[in-house]
Amino acid sequence: MTTTQTQPQIQQWTNLAQQLRVDSIRCTTAAGSGHPTSSMSAADLMAVLMISYLRYDFDNPKHPNNDHLIFSKGHAAPLLYSMYKAAGAIDDAELMTLRKFGSRLEGHPTPALPYVDVATGSLGQGLPIGVGVAMAGKYLDKLPYHVWVVLGDSEMAEGSIWEACDKAGFYKLDHLIGILDCNRLGQRGETELGWNTAAYAARARAFGWHAIEIDGHDYEQINQAYAEALQTEGKPTLIIAKTKKGKGVSFLEDKDGWHGKPVPKDKEDEALQELHRPARSMTFSVQKPENLQPVSIPPAKAVDLPRYEVGSSEATRKAYGDALKALGEADGRVVAMDGEVSNSTYAQEFAKAFPERFFEQYIAEEQLVATAIGMQVRHYIPFASTFAAFFSRAYDFIRMGAISRANIRLCGSHAGVSIGEDGPSQMALEDLAMMRAVFGSTVLYPSDPNQAAQLVAEMAKHDGIVYLRSTREKTPVLYAPDEKFTVGGSKVVKQSAQDKVTVVAAGITLHEALKAYEQLKGENIHARIIDAYSVKPIDEETILAAAEEAGNKIVTVEDHWPEGGLGDAVTEVFTQRDGPMPQVVKLAVQSMPGSGTPAELLEEAGISAHHIVQAVKALI
Amino acid sequence: MTTTQTQPQIQQWTNLAQQLRVDSIRCTTAAGSGHPTSSMSAADLMAVLMISYLRYDFDNPKHPNNDHLIFSKGHAAPLLYSMYKAAGAIDDAELMTLRKFGSRLEGHPTPALPYVDVATGSLGQGLPIGVGVAMAGKYLDKLPYHVWVVLGDSEMAEGSIWEACDKAGFYKLDHLIGILDCNRLGQRGETELGWNTAAYAARARAFGWHAIEIDGHDYEQINQAYAEALQTEGKPTLIIAKTKKGKGVSFLEDKDGWHGKPVPKDKEDEALQELHRPARSMTFSVQKPENLQPVSIPPAKAVDLPRYEVGSSEATRKAYGDALKALGEADGRVVAMDGEVSNSTYAQEFAKAFPERFFEQYIAEEQLVATAIGMQVRHYIPFASTFAAFFSRAYDFIRMGAISRANIRLCGSHAGVSIGEDGPSQMALEDLAMMRAVFGSTVLYPSDPNQAAQLVAEMAKHDGIVYLRSTREKTPVLYAPDEKFTVGGSKVVKQSAQDKVTVVAAGITLHEALKAYEQLKGENIHARIIDAYSVKPIDEETILAAAEEAGNKIVTVEDHWPEGGLGDAVTEVFTQRDGPMPQVVKLAVQSMPGSGTPAELLEEAGISAHHIVQAVKALI
Repeated sequence: MTTTQTQPQIQQWTNLAQQLRVDSIRCTTAAGSGHPTSSMSAADLMAVLMISYLRYDFDNPKHPNNDHLIFSKGHAAPLLYSMYKAAGAIDDAELMTLRKFGSRLEGHPTPALPYVDVATGSLGQGLPIGVGVAMAGKYLDKLPYHVWVVLGDSEMAEGSIWEACDKAGFYKLDHLIGILDCNRLGQRGETELGWNTAAYAARARAFGWHAIEIDGHDYEQINQAYAEALQTEGKPTLIIAKTKKGKGVSFLEDKDGWHGKPVPKDKEDEALQELHRPARSMTFSVQKPENLQPVSIPPAKAVDLPRYEVGSSEATRKAYGDALKALGEADGRVVAMDGEVSNSTYAQEFAKAFPERFFEQYIAEEQLVATAIGMQVRHYIPFASTFAAFFSRAYDFIRMGAISRANIRLCGSHAGVSIGEDGPSQMALEDLAMMRAVFGSTVLYPSDPNQAAQLVAEMAKHDGIVYLRSTREKTPVLYAPDEKFTVGGSKVVKQSAQDKVTVVAAGITLHEALKAYEQLKGENIHARIIDAYSVKPIDEETILAAAEEAGNKIVTVEDHWPEGGLGDAVTEVFTQRDGPMPQVVKLAVQSMPGSGTPAELLEEAGISAHHIVQAVKALI
Repeated sequence: MTTTQTQPQIQQWTNLAQQLRVDSIRCTTAAGSGHPTSSMSAADLMAVLMISYLRYDFDNPKHPNNDHLIFSKGHAAPLLYSMYKAAGAIDDAELMTLRKFGSRLEGHPTPALPYVDVATGSLGQGLPIGVGVAMAGKYLDKLPYHVWVVLGDSEMAEGSIWEACDKAGFYKLDHLIGILDCNRLGQRGETELGWNTAAYAARARAFGWHAIEIDGHDYEQINQAYAEALQTEGKPTLIIAKTKKGKGVSFLEDKDGWHGKPVPKDKEDEALQELHRPARSMTFSVQKPENLQPVSIPPAKAVDLPRYEVGSSEATRKAYGDALKALGEADGRVVAMDGEVSNSTYAQEFAKAFPERFFEQYIAEEQLVATAIGMQVRHYIPFASTFAAFFSRAYDFIRMGAISRANIRLCGSHAGVSIGEDGPSQMALEDLAMMRAVFGSTVLYPSDPNQAAQLVAEMAKHDGIVYLRSTREKTPVLYAPDEKFTVGGSKVVKQSAQDKVTVVAAGITLHEALKAYEQLKGENIHARIIDAYSVKPIDEETILAAAEEAGNKIVTVEDHWPEGGLGDAVTEVFTQRDGPMPQVVKLAVQSMPGSGTPAELLEEAGISAHHIVQAVKALI
């Protein structure tokens, strides 16, 4: 690494920067939409980075030593794609497919391209995820790769950025380098802080970062800043670059009103002339990374899950913790993180056993999920936990995680009114709806600790966004430790040839359903009871069979609002096939709960055994 | 205001502080749960505040000049309730109902008590909402009341706190005073920063605040800090008080392992002895506020809504902006805020007309919603807008808003795959599920600009969390400007006596359904077409009638994931009544979209006219 620069080097940077600008304009004009001006402001920064600092093997995007380049300002995708072209990773013809149907070059970056770690475009996400990647680099892989995150100035108003800054400082992520493209102009005018780069620097420093203010169009300063960042130890670096949006074209440069607008076709030539349109597209070589291996992890062993005795009682949240610890013993790729409630979620069982693989995120749920997403970029198997209600804080990260094709496991404890005295702020009553409405998600809600433990083991093997809802209260152990439970399965807990109705329950309500069963049986009413522990995918076959065999009448009961939860999952089954639907009655929480005992609140909510009995009787 | 203190004054503060500690212990021990130690750390801070600084008329909680006291650390509810008792607002018998079923004294504060502005308990929310209240005080009411927000140190890791700090600094909220109870211990051990009060101070200053570090058990320092905060102009003040959790009882003080745990009954007496259990409960008088009136607002006039000609085209997002401006003209209580995308959501129409009632929140969606919640505390009628996808960032605030019984209106633009080229990061495909699963919410999704305008006017009159989803694309104007649309209504767009099937659509998909209708009609297949613009509450009557009259066959079609949206809302209708359900086929987005034209993406998603035609033919 050197900070001396020669004239040919400056010329090379200039050539690349101008080509990146030219290509950013060309591909967006061809697309008829996109963000050329937000790309042009960062072109000089990226030119120096790509030629002189980035270490990346485009022939092997999975190389463990590759640096990671994350565009937190995802709308500068044209710049990123132009870099890929300049590196020879994609050709000009593909660049010109930007934003076209079927192209890998979407309006904002996604891992449809192998060089893109994660989807961005919802601002304020790239840095938090970069923090997760850098944590993996420093504490798990123990490799010297760098994580470069390109930030826009508008997104510095997002709280998630400061969660990330806080965690990066706390974890001393010296291989994380933020490049803030401070071009002053947001979508609709000047940003809050404009070109007040000193204000950004003060904030970064207060959060434990090294901060460097530069002119983002001065190659010397850019080069010096990168060199300084690489030499900084014990803290991450934020380079705050004062830049001009649309830099290089007089009618775009630092002009308001050009956000997210391509140069019109009839002005394209003028713009390219001003940039001295390079005579031909050049390819620039990017340094290859070193050839080091990450900390080696022994092959995974069989998991020795905890076992709970039928007849005893245990909370499924405790089973989560026990099983997570067992998974950790079996597979060194399993890592965990929690939002300062590990003594409630029982992630502490893992944390105590494997402190080097446990990452406390404190009360910062966006960063909690972002860290998980960042670590799966490096192929770890992350389990993130907090109160189920507080994952609502991170819904945008979960939604975007699906677009990133991320494989993460989330466990939300303290679900529903059954938590009791703490009151509604702590009760997840919308989590099933929220998690079901994530593309490709899996939603599990065990009723029993042996079942919970098995499902935790299943989660590790399962791709996509996998969510498990756990219960605060201890509940009776219903199933033997060796019974098998799988994603997409269910368990018919009670059935007979005389069944007149089916009750579908999950988690805490299964125990209410079983009480109702006994009461109904006493009155000679036979109900089939299904434990729908896999809420998504739901066990269609078992539910269809139950409807057919038990009078085409179904009662669903859930500790959740009526919308989007178990009841809707069951009803959904019947919208996917021919023939009329059965009669379905949904029991769910109908009024705003307060504090009280779990039993009082289940009764008040209309989801206790007593209400199930009433609903069954009304139905048959 | 004076900073001189006499011995009797110190004695009074001491008396109150000890009584607050005693009562915090008594009520939680009686409840068998709760957070006494988190209450005790802030007792000295609250004693001085209540006796010497707070101005509040407990006989008139709606007094416009009342200060606002918000416990952002909602788990210190026992302290807050003990203050209410000390002020004579509630009696000791009620205090002892803490956390009991039916009590107004829930585990975390909610507006079940008239002195509580908003529900807290999800950490990191009280300060952002306090920012909204303080904005209303400074810029709308123009009254000198203060907003006092009591913060815990753990919640300083939440990004939402820094969104709030940023906005408070930017808007120079000098009547906002944060009191950080820095007791070092979180739920599961030491917080990230422990007693590093200097680090908190540096962060606050970097975000534009005046910061004061004090010993939170030293009355002189506390008193000085409040006096200094009141004298600070042009910026908010954060008082960072180093405190001890469980202060005053030797076996609790600064001891780990006592978070969220009551003193056991057999230790209660020992604890109270150490606090010199006051001989009797004392009542302390709180200063009444001044008698000033807020800026007067003329009585609301009739709204003169925009009108769009049938046959022309306009986007519903533009109608939102036009109607919001019209509402603003009619009613001075209407205020608006946006997440730096007002030129996309068209909130700019309101912003241009009423800049003094428009509050730019920049890209900070949690604060966007929090500001709306804060302003409705002062009885304004807030409309908050951003891209629909980005409300997922604020879901926890929306959820808690329902617990606060807040009346806020949210408009999310750019919904669904129909936005086209920008790609999935910008497409809301889960917003209907998310918003439906909020207690008492209203969810609207207009298909036409005249309809959108009317629904915006309806929103202003409607309580609770009211959400409107708008569309990016211009669509044909279908309805005459004078047609009436109401919350809970729907519009049968096409019907005949020969209808064999009903298609229920909303927003963009209604236009696809109308194209399908014409195609089907050409093949002599008659379909009833319903515009279900009120997704929640849905028009049960019209849907039940359609099922009965049109062959008991329904196709729903929505630009949304299959879970929790329009299809489920329609299916829900049939789970609420006797009799078998009709056959329902749900068309919804089934694969992860990329970029493309709106038409290409609607087709790919399986929700275009072509797919509706296919589904209808398969069904009949």
